Amino acid sequence: MSATADPITARVHRTSFALGEDVVPYAYGDGCTDELLLLLAEEVASADRVLLVHDAVAADLAQRVVDGLAPHALVHPLPVSAREELKTLETVLHLAEEAVAAGVTRGSVVLALGGGLVGNVAGMVAATLFRGLPLVHLPTTPVAAFDAVLSAKQGVNLSAGKNMVGTFWTPRSVWCDLDWLRGVDARQVLTGTAEMAKNVLAVLPEREDDYLAAVDGLADPGSDALLRLLQIGVDAKTGPLRVDPHERSEALVFEYGHTVGHAVELASRGALSHGAAVGWGMLAAADVAARLGLLDDAAVAAHARVLAPLGVRVDAPPVLDRALVHRLLLRDNKRGYLPGIGDDVVPMVLLDRLGSARRGEGGRPLVPVPTDLVHAAVDEVLRPV
Amino acid sequence: MSATADPITARVHRTSFALGEDVVPYAYGDGCTDELLLLLAEEVASADRVLLVHDAVAADLAQRVVDGLAPHALVHPLPVSAREELKTLETVLHLAEEAVAAGVTRGSVVLALGGGLVGNVAGMVAATLFRGLPLVHLPTTPVAAFDAVLSAKQGVNLSAGKNMVGTFWTPRSVWCDLDWLRGVDARQVLTGTAEMAKNVLAVLPEREDDYLAAVDGLADPGSDALLRLLQIGVDAKTGPLRVDPHERSEALVFEYGHTVGHAVELASRGALSHGAAVGWGMLAAADVAARLGLLDDAAVAAHARVLAPLGVRVDAPPVLDRALVHRLLLRDNKRGYLPGIGDDVVPMVLLDRLGSARRGEGGRPLVPVPTDLVHAAVDEVLRPV
Repeated sequence: MSATADPITARVHRTSFALGEDVVPYAYGDGCTDELLLLLAEEVASADRVLLVHDAVAADLAQRVVDGLAPHALVHPLPVSAREELKTLETVLHLAEEAVAAGVTRGSVVLALGGGLVGNVAGMVAATLFRGLPLVHLPTTPVAAFDAVLSAKQGVNLSAGKNMVGTFWTPRSVWCDLDWLRGVDARQVLTGTAEMAKNVLAVLPEREDDYLAAVDGLADPGSDALLRLLQIGVDAKTGPLRVDPHERSEALVFEYGHTVGHAVELASRGALSHGAAVGWGMLAAADVAARLGLLDDAAVAAHARVLAPLGVRVDAPPVLDRALVHRLLLRDNKRGYLPGIGDDVVPMVLLDRLGSARRGEGGRPLVPVPTDLVHAAVDEVLRPV
Repeated sequence: MSATADPITARVHRTSFALGEDVVPYAYGDGCTDELLLLLAEEVASADRVLLVHDAVAADLAQRVVDGLAPHALVHPLPVSAREELKTLETVLHLAEEAVAAGVTRGSVVLALGGGLVGNVAGMVAATLFRGLPLVHLPTTPVAAFDAVLSAKQGVNLSAGKNMVGTFWTPRSVWCDLDWLRGVDARQVLTGTAEMAKNVLAVLPEREDDYLAAVDGLADPGSDALLRLLQIGVDAKTGPLRVDPHERSEALVFEYGHTVGHAVELASRGALSHGAAVGWGMLAAADVAARLGLLDDAAVAAHARVLAPLGVRVDAPPVLDRALVHRLLLRDNKRGYLPGIGDDVVPMVLLDRLGSARRGEGGRPLVPVPTDLVHAAVDEVLRPV
């Protein structure tokens, strides 16, 4: 018997991540759409219908998926507009009605092709139609591919806030050709990369060089930058999500940088990307931890090294209304984990060394910080130079 | 130390049922609303808000619940109209928006006061708001108290059919003063009782005398009829729901009588209650099983004994378009469990003796029956006399 290289195996990487007791396979590669669709066709061949919920702007890619799967399955594409104001239960209802009209049954499968918003809305449809259909993610943005699909959390918005209605539904599998990510703008690349910076600082400090090499190669389409970043995302998330699939204790570590980050993002009124805002949030969190004597200078310096290539540099802060940032800090949704706290305290994820989050009440990686101290740190990192 | 009888313990019965690995406590009694509310107040005392979703027609009882809990908790009542056409995701969205506007947080509890429809809609709100809040049922109809609350299935309708969108959410507890059930009409009593007849025939034949005594006492408000029926409901459901909390295998036994029953109910265009229709469905199922040699004459006679007190008697069949019943049989949603079957087969729950459902593919209590044979059985039990 002569061994021959399988051309599919050669181009498709296979990894997986844990969600509680479930293990979710993740197949990816760079320039391997045909190979991925061949493999995906096998996975969905036993479904009586394949509902392809896709971002309306990804119509060409959606057509390629339809064409690739059509010999093996009945595929029904359903475009959605990836707009935050349409991320609602009404959209879920609309998609569910359309799905049933198209012949979807309890023997069907839902594919979600798009960014995080499409994944969440399609995830709600999959979680609730016939009380649960298999969900397969095909992420098309960096933050979706590296971060958002690695979660059981599905959700839509209420008028009072984001993701206030939702459920937990574990995807059956994830498939991504990193070439799909090359169409997005620099802002979306920054956001996906900033979440990987967070993973390196808060979970995987031993991957700093790997991360820096990836960031360095991002501008070069021939580099393996996206492959490296994706694997950092999977490697960081699988441990915490194995023990905490509902992301209410151990996995709160992935909120690192997000307390100040969300406030900065809102205060910038759209000027800063989510990624840049979270970067500033991490610098502020490092400053808070240093003030509390938790984090040494070397660890703070690592924050600067990891974030500077993303344009998050203390010598070039954004111009923001810092008093507004101070006020917005008190709206953080992590406050619900520490019932009864007043406005003099901000619950934050803080590191006591790189890769190690400080534990608070109930062993959660969430500690109460005096609001004055957080304000001082915000003022420090956002001080005009 | 002198022992004194605790007046609460004396009036409140405590039982429980299983849903997978969870055990759900069920406290009930007759004329014990004050005692139940005292106990319920303890359970919800740590919640920051109590959202009381209630049937709009149960406003007086809702006010009593508000008054009873008010010293211990912040209660926000939210009336819903228990109409099938309002059992939708839009209603869930409306309730969720109202709840958040009223201050409900991830530290709140949802109470569902009403019949099965209110329980299902409130259950969807509880399952999805903040990705899950504790759900407490306060059933006010016989079918809700004896049957519907004993389930993790929550759901709402699509235009194409009932309960097509939903999820699984285990209630934290159930509380019922059987006196709440005395306000309903005879039709609703019949429906709740018919489901208990089903439980006796398909799961608990040793409780036939208990059941018959209860039915005999139903007209007497001083009898313990409702207490007996409730306990039959709990005892029948807990075994199958322990091993099959999603009701997709073992617990399909509770579909006994429902294949022909749903067709009869639809064909009667509202003339027959769900309970009477399911009664006729059970008579037809017994006839089918007898024709297949599964069920002996004594078991068929038991069906007559158990159903006759509900007015379901072969010597007094309803006037129905039997050809329509034949056609409607083929719309049954259990068909989805046997993919690929044609119109010549009807999947049914059949007994091979009292308390024992015949097993089909995959060990499910669901067997494929030739459609002609089902038609013959329908014609036999509905034959004009």
